[in-house]
Amino acid sequence: MKELPITKAFMLIEPGPVTLVTTAIGRKKNIMTISWTLVMDFTPKLGFVTGSWNHSFHALMLTKECVIAIPSVDMAETAVGIGTCSGADTDKFRKFGLTPTKAKVVKAPLIAECIANIECRLIDYVKKHDLFVLEGVRAWIDPDSHTRRTLHAVGDGTFVADGRKMNLRALMAEKIPPGA
Amino acid sequence: MKELPITKAFMLIEPGPVTLVTTAIGRKKNIMTISWTLVMDFTPKLGFVTGSWNHSFHALMLTKECVIAIPSVDMAETAVGIGTCSGADTDKFRKFGLTPTKAKVVKAPLIAECIANIECRLIDYVKKHDLFVLEGVRAWIDPDSHTRRTLHAVGDGTFVADGRKMNLRALMAEKIPPGA
Repeated sequence: MKELPITKAFMLIEPGPVTLVTTAIGRKKNIMTISWTLVMDFTPKLGFVTGSWNHSFHALMLTKECVIAIPSVDMAETAVGIGTCSGADTDKFRKFGLTPTKAKVVKAPLIAECIANIECRLIDYVKKHDLFVLEGVRAWIDPDSHTRRTLHAVGDGTFVADGRKMNLRALMAEKIPPGA
Repeated sequence: MKELPITKAFMLIEPGPVTLVTTAIGRKKNIMTISWTLVMDFTPKLGFVTGSWNHSFHALMLTKECVIAIPSVDMAETAVGIGTCSGADTDKFRKFGLTPTKAKVVKAPLIAECIANIECRLIDYVKKHDLFVLEGVRAWIDPDSHTRRTLHAVGDGTFVADGRKMNLRALMAEKIPPGA
């Protein structure tokens, strides 16, 4: 993976793909599937909703770190599998044949097979809404990411892959942040 | 538009499409383009980030109501146009040839040309993060919605249309909420 300028990392989340969020307590790594994500600013400040019913919740609260990884369409069954078993009794990296890679700043691992990874620090937790607010600090992307497509969850067990791309930069030049 | 059970409305936002958010103060209607959205629960509780730099901010704070409308791919230039002018000096319904339709519960209008519309009530505003938290109360969908595709913003002026659909319901049956 090559480094992606952190000012571009919001562009990984804004389109709304399914994400895989990794955490680590010591050598015990875990992954959860999250599609309830949010861009909150260009820093990037990113958010997602999860609660204490999720095994990763405690690791997030304890370590205040995670990695948000973006799986590709061919990883759809893996993303669903990760979302339907628990880190309480499963080593998800082993079960799903994923490769944890050392991150630069956080202790949570990158997922080598994903299209991209964002190292994040927890900067706030809005308990009333189960909302984790994170700052992206480093980002990494597959140099061949343009050949891969992300996956969007509909919520009823169906998913939509990315389709055709459209370039409307000329129409919204003044709204594009300098780093994008 | 036919009514969509409100328990299915989160499925309009979870995939992460570009949205158009309408507000109304008396007869003065406005629209803003928002792609920083979030599903927060199945009620549905929905969120989006915007701030006081946005003309619609004041209408939202005052009326505590809005409609989240989902435009289709063929409305991409309209969505960008709405996002690059201000309701302070523009009647956006007129400028973009959109038809405001009476909603059932809220005073903000539906957008007849969109794929779907969710009538929402503001239930919280997390000032620290410019986060509006809404409860979806009624939802409406084009009976031909299955023939139309939504649009995802990348954030740099490019967009991605929906592509192929995948059905993984059998793999995640236990995670699908009863209403979906």
